[in-house]
Amino acid sequence: MWSDVRRALYPGRFQPIHWGHVSVIRWALQQVDELIIAVGTAQESHTVVNPFTSGERVVMIKEALKEAGLELSRTYVIPVPDILMNSVWPYYVQMYVPKFQYGVARNPLVLRLFKDAGIKTLVPPPYDRMKYSSTRIRKLILAGSNEWRDLVPKSVASFIDEVGGAERLREIIGVD
Amino acid sequence: MWSDVRRALYPGRFQPIHWGHVSVIRWALQQVDELIIAVGTAQESHTVVNPFTSGERVVMIKEALKEAGLELSRTYVIPVPDILMNSVWPYYVQMYVPKFQYGVARNPLVLRLFKDAGIKTLVPPPYDRMKYSSTRIRKLILAGSNEWRDLVPKSVASFIDEVGGAERLREIIGVD
Amino acid sequence: MWSDVRRALYPGRFQPIHWGHVSVIRWALQQVDELIIAVGTAQESHTVVNPFTSGERVVMIKEALKEAGLELSRTYVIPVPDILMNSVWPYYVQMYVPKFQYGVARNPLVLRLFKDAGIKTLVPPPYDRMKYSSTRIRKLILAGSNEWRDLVPKSVASFIDEVGGAERLREIIGVD
Amino acid sequence: MWSDVRRALYPGRFQPIHWGHVSVIRWALQQVDELIIAVGTAQESHTVVNPFTSGERVVMIKEALKEAGLELSRTYVIPVPDILMNSVWPYYVQMYVPKFQYGVARNPLVLRLFKDAGIKTLVPPPYDRMKYSSTRIRKLILAGSNEWRDLVPKSVASFIDEVGGAERLREIIGVD
Amino acid sequence: MWSDVRRALYPGRFQPIHWGHVSVIRWALQQVDELIIAVGTAQESHTVVNPFTSGERVVMIKEALKEAGLELSRTYVIPVPDILMNSVWPYYVQMYVPKFQYGVARNPLVLRLFKDAGIKTLVPPPYDRMKYSSTRIRKLILAGSNEWRDLVPKSVASFIDEVGGAERLREIIGVD
Amino acid sequence: MWSDVRRALYPGRFQPIHWGHVSVIRWALQQVDELIIAVGTAQESHTVVNPFTSGERVVMIKEALKEAGLELSRTYVIPVPDILMNSVWPYYVQMYVPKFQYGVARNPLVLRLFKDAGIKTLVPPPYDRMKYSSTRIRKLILAGSNEWRDLVPKSVASFIDEVGGAERLREIIGVD
Repeated sequence: MWSDVRRALYPGRFQPIHWGHVSVIRWALQQVDELIIAVGTAQESHTVVNPFTSGERVVMIKEALKEAGLELSRTYVIPVPDILMNSVWPYYVQMYVPKFQYGVARNPLVLRLFKDAGIKTLVPPPYDRMKYSSTRIRKLILAGSNEWRDLVPKSVASFIDEVGGAERLREIIGVD
Repeated sequence: MWSDVRRALYPGRFQPIHWGHVSVIRWALQQVDELIIAVGTAQESHTVVNPFTSGERVVMIKEALKEAGLELSRTYVIPVPDILMNSVWPYYVQMYVPKFQYGVARNPLVLRLFKDAGIKTLVPPPYDRMKYSSTRIRKLILAGSNEWRDLVPKSVASFIDEVGGAERLREIIGVD
Repeated sequence: MWSDVRRALYPGRFQPIHWGHVSVIRWALQQVDELIIAVGTAQESHTVVNPFTSGERVVMIKEALKEAGLELSRTYVIPVPDILMNSVWPYYVQMYVPKFQYGVARNPLVLRLFKDAGIKTLVPPPYDRMKYSSTRIRKLILAGSNEWRDLVPKSVASFIDEVGGAERLREIIGVD
Repeated sequence: MWSDVRRALYPGRFQPIHWGHVSVIRWALQQVDELIIAVGTAQESHTVVNPFTSGERVVMIKEALKEAGLELSRTYVIPVPDILMNSVWPYYVQMYVPKFQYGVARNPLVLRLFKDAGIKTLVPPPYDRMKYSSTRIRKLILAGSNEWRDLVPKSVASFIDEVGGAERLREIIGVD
Repeated sequence: MWSDVRRALYPGRFQPIHWGHVSVIRWALQQVDELIIAVGTAQESHTVVNPFTSGERVVMIKEALKEAGLELSRTYVIPVPDILMNSVWPYYVQMYVPKFQYGVARNPLVLRLFKDAGIKTLVPPPYDRMKYSSTRIRKLILAGSNEWRDLVPKSVASFIDEVGGAERLREIIGVD
Repeated sequence: MWSDVRRALYPGRFQPIHWGHVSVIRWALQQVDELIIAVGTAQESHTVVNPFTSGERVVMIKEALKEAGLELSRTYVIPVPDILMNSVWPYYVQMYVPKFQYGVARNPLVLRLFKDAGIKTLVPPPYDRMKYSSTRIRKLILAGSNEWRDLVPKSVASFIDEVGGAERLREIIGVD
C-alpha cells in the first residue's frame, strides 16, 4: 500500500544546493524508500540570502541529483513558502508534500519541531560546514572567485552561469 | 543549454486528477520537451471544492502519470498556493517553477493571462467535460456511487480509498 | 504539575453565544478540569455572519458563563483568527491556547481534524439546533422580533442592546 | 495651514466609474476643499465583480473628472487594497490617504464605520441606482448591448474599448 | 451598564512575564475596574525573541497573577497577533478585546499611538529595567545561570522548567 | 489614444521626499509625457525607516512638485504596499498604476527587475547622495539639527513640522 512506503522529509533553502546537501540526500536515500526535498522560503528571490527563485532551485536540485547518480524517481522536490509560525511549520509542510514518517535534519530547532510533531528524526552524518555552505558560496561568487565551483555539482555551476547568477548577486547588493 | 529546453506549464487544481487531465498531459508531452504541472490552490484542503491537500494531489498525479505510461522524468509536479491577484498570477507562478515558454489551457481567462504575460499558449483538444470533471467525481463519491472509479486511473481510485476520501468528503459537508 | 490538568478545547464563532452553547460548556466542565473556549474567525466583524468583534464575543461569553453560574476560573476565553488551512488548524490553534488533550465538537469535519491531530474528542449531547442557532438569532434580531431574547442569557441580550446590535445588523445588510 | 483644508473621503470600487459616481464627486467638491477618491479592493482584477485593475480605475476616474469639468487639482485618487476587517477599515484607509475630516457615503454600514471612527459624514443626494450601477454596466457590456455607453463618461467608454473590456469580461466568465 | 466599567489595556509580549510586569498590573488594577492584558506578537514562537507560544504566555500570566494575589476576575488575558501597521494597531487591538478607555504604557511610541487614537494613557511608575527585563531573563536562562528565577514568580519558573524552556532556548540558537 | 501616452514609473519610499528626488522627477518629466510616482512600502509608518504614512508621503510629494513648479497634471502619485516577492514586484505594481513603458531607477536590482519584466529603463543623472538622502534627513531631524531643512522643499519642511515629525521620530526610537 502507498502509505507503507518509508518516506522522509529533508527541508532546506538550497541557495544554492552544494555537495554537502547532496551527501545528505545520498545518505537519506539509503535510510528510506523515498525522500521529499522541501525547498523552503519558496516565495523569496532576488535577495542577498535568497538570490534564486524556488523554480530555479528545483531545477538545480534535480540537476545535482542526476549528476550525482541518485534516483530521481525516489525523490520529490517541492517548494514550500514560509509560514512564519515555527510551532505550526511541521504540520503546514505536511499539507504541501506526500505523507512522510521521518524528518532529516541536524539543526536542533528543526529536530525539536519534528519531535514535538511526533515525526521520527534521521540525523545525517556531518559534512564540512566550514567548506560547504551556501552562504560561503554566495560570498565567493560575489567576490569574483572561482573557488565556489568546486563546492557544487558542475551542472549547478553551469545553471548559475546560465541565469547570470554572479551578475544577479552583484545587482542585489548594488547601490545606486 | 538548459534554457533551450521547450517547456510548458499546465495549471489546475486536480481535485482529483482524472482521465481528462491525463489526456491533456499526454498531448502536452507531445508538444514540448518538458511539462510543469502546477497544482493550484495548494494551501487549501478539507473543503468541498478542495478536499485533498496539495501533497496528496502531487502523489495522485505522479501515480496517474506512471499508470498512463507517461515519462515522469519529463515532468515537474509543483504545488502553487493562491495569490488572489489574477493579473499577477502568471508572473507569480514563474517564481515557483522552472522557466517555461508555453502555457497549456482552454479556459479563456487563463489564456488571456498567459497572452498578456507574453507566454505562448498551447490549447489542447477538448475532452468530454460532462463526463470527466473533478466536480462531478466529488459528487459521485459523495453520493456513494462507484461510477467515479472509471473516470480516474486505478491508482488514483486506490489512493482515494486509502486516505478515506469518501469519508472525508462526507465529513466536510456533514452537519453537527 | 500544570500539564496534568485535564483540559479541553471548544471552538466556535459565538455570533452570539446562546443557551445551546452554554449547555455544551456546562457539560464539558463536567468532563475536564479546565475548558478553553476558542472564539474563531476573530479577525472579522460587522459582516452578516460575523456581526460582533471578537472582543465583544469574549465579553458576551464571560457574561453568559457568570449568569449560568459556571466557574469562570476554570475557563479560558481566547480569540483565534482564521488560518484558512483546515488541515493545519488544530496545530495553529494550539499555538494560541494552553495545552489541551481533548476537543469538544459535534461537527464531523472538526472531529476529523481533531482525530487526525491526535486529539481525543468529547462529543457533547445534542441540543435543539432548530431552536438554538446563532444564524436564527441574527435573523430574528433583524426581523425586529423579540423571540431571540429567550435563546440567549439575559446578560447577552442586554449587551447586544447596549452595543446597538439590532441597528448594527440592519446597517450591515442595509443598501444605500 | 495644510491641516486646515477641509477634506473628505469618498470610497468605492468604481468598476467602472459612471455618471452616478461623478454626480457624487461634483456634489462633494461643493462641500469641501479637497476630495480623496479611494479606489477600494485595489488588489483585485480580472474577476466578475472587479474586472479592471486599480491602475485602470485610477485612469478612468481621472478621465471622467476631466470630462465632467471637475478640478483634478482638488482631488486625490488613491488605490486602497482590502483589509477584510470592517471595524479597522476607517483607520487603515487613513494610513493610505491625506488627513480628512469627512466621509462621503450613503451605505449604512460605511456611515456607521465612519461615525464609530469619529469621522463626520456627508450624505450625497441619491441618484437613480436602478439606472446607474456598475453591476448593471458590467452586465450590459457582457450582453453585448451598447446601452451602458450612456451611463459612463465618453472617455470612460473609450478607455474600456481601448483595453478590450468587453472581451475581458467575456473571458472572465468564459468556460473551457 | 457594562460600558460604564473603567477598563484599561496593557500590551506587551511577556516573553516571559516577570515581577516588573506584575508590578505594572498591580498598579493598573488600582487605577481601573478591569485590566486587559494583550499578549502581543501572538503568532510567533520558538524564536530567540519570542520563545514561548501565546498559549504558554497566557498560562504564565494567569499563574503569575494568582501567585501575586491579584484578582483574575478583574482581568482579561488575550493574545493578539501582529498587524505590522503601527498607526492602525490601536484600532486593530480594539477588535480583539473588550471596550477600554485607557492605555497602560511607558514606551513613547505606544503612548503616541494611544493618544492619536483618542485613548487616555496611564503611565505606570518605573521599575528597575536593568534588572527586570525579559531579554535579560532569556539570556540568563541561555547562560545556564539560575539568577533569572528571582526575577519571575515561582509559578512562572516552574512552568518554564515544565515546558523545557532552557532546552528550547538552546535549541533555537543552536547550530547544526 | 490613451495608450499612446509615453509614461514612466518612478518607485521610491520618499521618507521624506528631498531635492534629489525632485531633480529626478524634473528630469523624468522631460523624458516622458506622464510620470507615475509609486510610493513604496505604503503599508508601513511610525518606524525608524518609515516614519510617515503613505498618505502623508503623498501630500509631501504633491507639495514638493507644486513648489518646484512641476506640472502636477502630468503626474500620478500612488501608494503601493509591499509584496515581498522581488521577481513579482514589477508586475504587481503594474496592477496599481496606469500602464507605463519606462522604469526610472539607478538601483541595479530595480533596473534588473524592470529589464526582466520587459520594461525599458530610464537612468536619471546622479545627484549628491551623500548630501541628499532620506536616511540622513531622518538622522538630522532626530539630532535636533536644522540642517535637513535645506535638503527638502520648504513646503515639505513645513508639513513635517505641522505633523510633529521630529517628535514622532524621537518617540519611535524612544525607550520606556
